[in-house]
Amino acid sequence: MPLKNTNIVSAAQTKFGALEGVTLREIFSEAVNKATIDAGVPKKDIQAAFIGSFIPEMLIHQGHTAPLLLDFAGLKGLPATRHEAACASGATALRAAVMAIESEMYDTVLVAGVEKMTSVSTSGATEALAAAADDQFESSIGLTFPGVFGLAAVAHMQKYGTTEEDMALVAVKAHKNASTNPLAQFQKEITLEKALTPRYIAWPLKLFDCSPISDGAAALVLTSNDKAKKYTDLPVKITGSGQASASMNLCDRKDLTSFSASVEASKAAYKMAGLEAKDMDFAIVHDCFTIAEIIASEDIGFFRPGEGARAVRDGVTALDGDRPINPMGGLKAVGHPVGATGVKQAVVAYRELIGDAGPNQVAKHDAAVVHNFGGTGATCVVTVMRRGDV
Amino acid sequence: MPLKNTNIVSAAQTKFGALEGVTLREIFSEAVNKATIDAGVPKKDIQAAFIGSFIPEMLIHQGHTAPLLLDFAGLKGLPATRHEAACASGATALRAAVMAIESEMYDTVLVAGVEKMTSVSTSGATEALAAAADDQFESSIGLTFPGVFGLAAVAHMQKYGTTEEDMALVAVKAHKNASTNPLAQFQKEITLEKALTPRYIAWPLKLFDCSPISDGAAALVLTSNDKAKKYTDLPVKITGSGQASASMNLCDRKDLTSFSASVEASKAAYKMAGLEAKDMDFAIVHDCFTIAEIIASEDIGFFRPGEGARAVRDGVTALDGDRPINPMGGLKAVGHPVGATGVKQAVVAYRELIGDAGPNQVAKHDAAVVHNFGGTGATCVVTVMRRGDV
Repeated sequence: MPLKNTNIVSAAQTKFGALEGVTLREIFSEAVNKATIDAGVPKKDIQAAFIGSFIPEMLIHQGHTAPLLLDFAGLKGLPATRHEAACASGATALRAAVMAIESEMYDTVLVAGVEKMTSVSTSGATEALAAAADDQFESSIGLTFPGVFGLAAVAHMQKYGTTEEDMALVAVKAHKNASTNPLAQFQKEITLEKALTPRYIAWPLKLFDCSPISDGAAALVLTSNDKAKKYTDLPVKITGSGQASASMNLCDRKDLTSFSASVEASKAAYKMAGLEAKDMDFAIVHDCFTIAEIIASEDIGFFRPGEGARAVRDGVTALDGDRPINPMGGLKAVGHPVGATGVKQAVVAYRELIGDAGPNQVAKHDAAVVHNFGGTGATCVVTVMRRGDV
Repeated sequence: MPLKNTNIVSAAQTKFGALEGVTLREIFSEAVNKATIDAGVPKKDIQAAFIGSFIPEMLIHQGHTAPLLLDFAGLKGLPATRHEAACASGATALRAAVMAIESEMYDTVLVAGVEKMTSVSTSGATEALAAAADDQFESSIGLTFPGVFGLAAVAHMQKYGTTEEDMALVAVKAHKNASTNPLAQFQKEITLEKALTPRYIAWPLKLFDCSPISDGAAALVLTSNDKAKKYTDLPVKITGSGQASASMNLCDRKDLTSFSASVEASKAAYKMAGLEAKDMDFAIVHDCFTIAEIIASEDIGFFRPGEGARAVRDGVTALDGDRPINPMGGLKAVGHPVGATGVKQAVVAYRELIGDAGPNQVAKHDAAVVHNFGGTGATCVVTVMRRGDV
């Protein structure tokens, strides 16, 4: 049965990028203020907060982030919980908030995600990110994430004939979409030739196949049906929420061309929403690497296995294509402050659904699917959203 | 309105202590197996998992722990989320699970908490724990937790005349109760004289005022009313759940003799349960330091402010007293594997409520309150539980 009581009534993100001279708590507060005061939701209406952040412990030696951030954002005292699921941290916070509303324990809650990654060196960030993989069996022997997704790319190339050029086209699309998104880390189009520059990070992935290291935050306000009209005439309803996990170890996977948690979470979300992939007008997927977008587009059912690359080549996933994917630029070009990403994806879906995406507006925007995954797809959360008036 | 649909039907913990030669995932699996297979709950009945762990990132360079642990425990694929709120991590996981059941998104879920702290040196553990305080303003300049609770002790002594001996009596009680608890880290009684040994950790707190560094895990199975009878004739009902936060910084607190989040979370939990502190037959409170138990016993409404120490002196909080507190030994003597603690506290309450606490059984056991807090009380979760047949 579709969820019936959960509405997004406001959504905002900070600029993503290397945000110098500001702290984690300041970035967080900016997103919260934009999603509350600036959006006409008084802070006093917020009853609880659900916060996604991945690894502030290693990036800024700070755990127990929920009360710290809440205090600085002017919401001291409220129940505040921090949710960690690597790159899916934001979506697990969102999902916990959905349960809070559906349980009727709260009416109006804040969901936020934040990460401050540029306080450490690139190698420091890579080491911190590696904590999302199995330290005992994988990351400790050097398999960091560019390597993991390089392996997935090789498997997809071998099984389906996907090429380096196909992956580069995902980057070209991402940069094109982000060029009109003022909150993106990279607002510059790139040519296919540039995307193919042979600066390999982990073969066959090159520099432009990888999402950047970023700072940023995003926030949403969720509320029940009764309260939604107080804030907006056009809420977005969360009607389906699915989550699944998989082994952390690649050695336990049968196949690297698909992520089982993505497939399972998508099925669960569509089933709950009473909809199918074909009913979705567009998708927001977790494109931490270009190959991840291609695989995700297949795992969420937009294309058959092995046909994601052709969809990119044919422009099907472009902003003006039949099945737009990541119409505002994705992790790849907008940036990937890890804990913020899952919430930011929901912010983008909200803006597109209510028709507030400006030059990045997709043509059809009644229903959307949002796919956020963590690590090597060991956690995946998929959310189905519909515009409230359809 | 009291929560109506959430039942604990099984509960277990591992031995707490310095568990050598076993990994985080092995400790976790032991607790899960005890709370599922060994308790007559088939693993296939579990639909989702909610896991508390505080800081595996700094202790064993491992984040994204939920899918990793679930896989090793034979539950691969299920939705699994990790909850972090410093020492209250376990109770925030429990609370998320309560919302999952009450939302009717799941019928039967696992709640577990785990920490492996002895993989690093004592100073390494102290540094990791310090991430639970505000790094920007406090912990980075040397205020670690023994210091924080030393300040609270001084404030309580000054305001209410509490003495070092009063605090030592909390330790004596904890060790006495733990002496008959085979899962405790310390199963040895101590004399008052020994508890007063002037080996100061942070004046006025001495060695025996401090909970130890521990490894361990605990697990619960929660289920809806419909399903509960499948597993047990005597479920424990969670009827009230409250949570609150406070500033991380001590400099923003008006008073160190009480923790506002404990007071607020208690009020919310009692209100939801439709009960009062006087209706509680016993309490499980967060005694990370002896002074913390005294303050908590006041904050949860068992005693008036400043009267917690006298209650200890008079034996009111003893196992055979009128208002037993921590009847199996508390964090102080059973151990404090941080992420496990909030779940272990619920395990203890469950065992006492169903009359399964052996030599540690309290006389009256219809209703209990469980208090778990994080950092300097910046997060507090309070849970009210009742035996299902009363």
